[in-house]
Amino acid sequence: MNDLIFTNSVGKSLATIVAGMNEPRLFVLTDANTSQFVLPRLVEQYPALSTAVNITVHAGDFNKTLDAARDVWKVLIDHEASRHDVLINVGGGVVTDLGGFVASTYRRGMHFINIPTTLLGAVDASVGGKNGVNFGGFKNQIGTFAVADATIISSCFFDTLTDRDMLSGYAEMLKHALLDSPKMLARLLAFNVLEAQSADLLALIEENVKVKRSIVDADFREAGPRKALNLGHTAAHAFESLAMARRSPIPHGYAVAAGCVVALVLSHLKFKFPSDTLHAFAAYVREHYEPVEFTCDDYPALLNYMAHDKKNDHHGIFNYTLLKAPGKPMVNVALTAEDITGALDIYRDLMGI
Amino acid sequence: MNDLIFTNSVGKSLATIVAGMNEPRLFVLTDANTSQFVLPRLVEQYPALSTAVNITVHAGDFNKTLDAARDVWKVLIDHEASRHDVLINVGGGVVTDLGGFVASTYRRGMHFINIPTTLLGAVDASVGGKNGVNFGGFKNQIGTFAVADATIISSCFFDTLTDRDMLSGYAEMLKHALLDSPKMLARLLAFNVLEAQSADLLALIEENVKVKRSIVDADFREAGPRKALNLGHTAAHAFESLAMARRSPIPHGYAVAAGCVVALVLSHLKFKFPSDTLHAFAAYVREHYEPVEFTCDDYPALLNYMAHDKKNDHHGIFNYTLLKAPGKPMVNVALTAEDITGALDIYRDLMGI
Repeated sequence: MNDLIFTNSVGKSLATIVAGMNEPRLFVLTDANTSQFVLPRLVEQYPALSTAVNITVHAGDFNKTLDAARDVWKVLIDHEASRHDVLINVGGGVVTDLGGFVASTYRRGMHFINIPTTLLGAVDASVGGKNGVNFGGFKNQIGTFAVADATIISSCFFDTLTDRDMLSGYAEMLKHALLDSPKMLARLLAFNVLEAQSADLLALIEENVKVKRSIVDADFREAGPRKALNLGHTAAHAFESLAMARRSPIPHGYAVAAGCVVALVLSHLKFKFPSDTLHAFAAYVREHYEPVEFTCDDYPALLNYMAHDKKNDHHGIFNYTLLKAPGKPMVNVALTAEDITGALDIYRDLMGI
Repeated sequence: MNDLIFTNSVGKSLATIVAGMNEPRLFVLTDANTSQFVLPRLVEQYPALSTAVNITVHAGDFNKTLDAARDVWKVLIDHEASRHDVLINVGGGVVTDLGGFVASTYRRGMHFINIPTTLLGAVDASVGGKNGVNFGGFKNQIGTFAVADATIISSCFFDTLTDRDMLSGYAEMLKHALLDSPKMLARLLAFNVLEAQSADLLALIEENVKVKRSIVDADFREAGPRKALNLGHTAAHAFESLAMARRSPIPHGYAVAAGCVVALVLSHLKFKFPSDTLHAFAAYVREHYEPVEFTCDDYPALLNYMAHDKKNDHHGIFNYTLLKAPGKPMVNVALTAEDITGALDIYRDLMGI
């Protein structure tokens, strides 16, 4: 698996990694935000980075497209990048997903290093090698499994983020806690991510990422157990696709928080997931995340998005990951449209919409 | 590695492979030629194939583009293909390279089966997992390493090919013979591919493909030894790019035959590759393949194409695979522009152009 480095000395760490490579030329992929707010700080810490070719893409999931990938491939070709050069992806999930896809397919695979600058990127995109672009109105339809040469995880750039960005990332941490244990879940439901000290947060991230890493290591290509990580994501992707179609995108983590509530409702109905934990989780989500807005008129569209989800093995079956209890995932649970619309009704009740 | 099946009962073999999968829906990728001349014969042998979704792309290397990939991804999405469905690529290298790339990146990898219908596809594209599309005027710049679930190699569709197609494929067989031994090389220089019986040819292909397979198995991601297979290809790709830029493409194998002559000239100059073998090989190429046409005015363009070759680790160094003798490859030989233009001069002498 990839080399995960937890540190707030990012520039120093990057310099060490590059020094261990075979004199690569450096290409840095940023979005409009990280090129302005993060790259200058990295250059200050690691001056050699000022010689890198900087490629900047538009921010936002809207722009994680094949056309954006084409633009990056074009710059690499124009600079005659070899597969021994390195693409350093500095940004959130859009940049690391896009950059990982571009690098893993450029001349059938050049080196790449990920430096996630968001909490979401640090806890989610950093591990597991999934990358890709949206296509045909659906998320991550085109992509590869490819592991970065190194991933540097830090909390030092989070001062550039909004509270919404932080909460969005925290939703994936909550998901990992649901997959780990009642104890970790209780800790996270009591932790205040918006007030935390940088070092405390980095320590919590390291512990949290280990949950994901142990699942991924056991099943890199998602033959089975890794599907546990899809908890909440079948509904979440449908919520995001609906929001994208309406041209008012929602943060990924907000969709995940909502999707986890839907998954816990289904888990309770199918596997007697504890009612008190479901209600504690739903209350947390209701308090911290504005709800995903939809009505029963949107159910056909949401079901259609779910039918297109990569996680569905066969047309017409809705394939969910559920929980018997915190830490006890059940993958490949086949659900009907009625199961799902029932859970969407209850989600709306729980969120008061 | 992938499951290589040598048989002239292609439909039966395909039926067996599909029966061993989890009830996939079938998608068949063809080009304009194979959809007309091969697919109906396959359907006759395996009637269930008539229910497959057929996707047809334009024939020719010109059309091995990202736009063609986009068209295929679009059809897969429109039909809600899952990653458990299977794309059956029926055609030459264009179809299997494009189809392998599309399948390996669709939802991060769906099943695919290759059925090469050309000699070139049977001996080259069938093994090794390389796929991809041309981009920015350069060949195979975007792609992945991905191994088909199965590859069915036959000689029964070669009756749809021209003599030029057969000779084009035979050039890769000659290259494998150069990498194997003086004995195999002598046999192939004496064999008449245009007059051979189908069963004899299939047996020779099976033996020849083993040369490539043993090299690939030792070094899947081309860290070193696999580069032996690039013999002749640095020059060949430059010849093809030049021809493509002139809008008068040449068959891949014709470029490889010429590229192998260039490589043997360099091998003689640098490593005392036996002069008599060089001349026997060059005489064979001169007799059977029309030469790639260029003058010394084209040298800067050819060197520029070589500089863009994926095989070049670093800008400005020309990285070649050469031979000390048949069966004795030397990879990562660093050459100067003068070395190469000198060899191009001698190539033109040997071919009488």
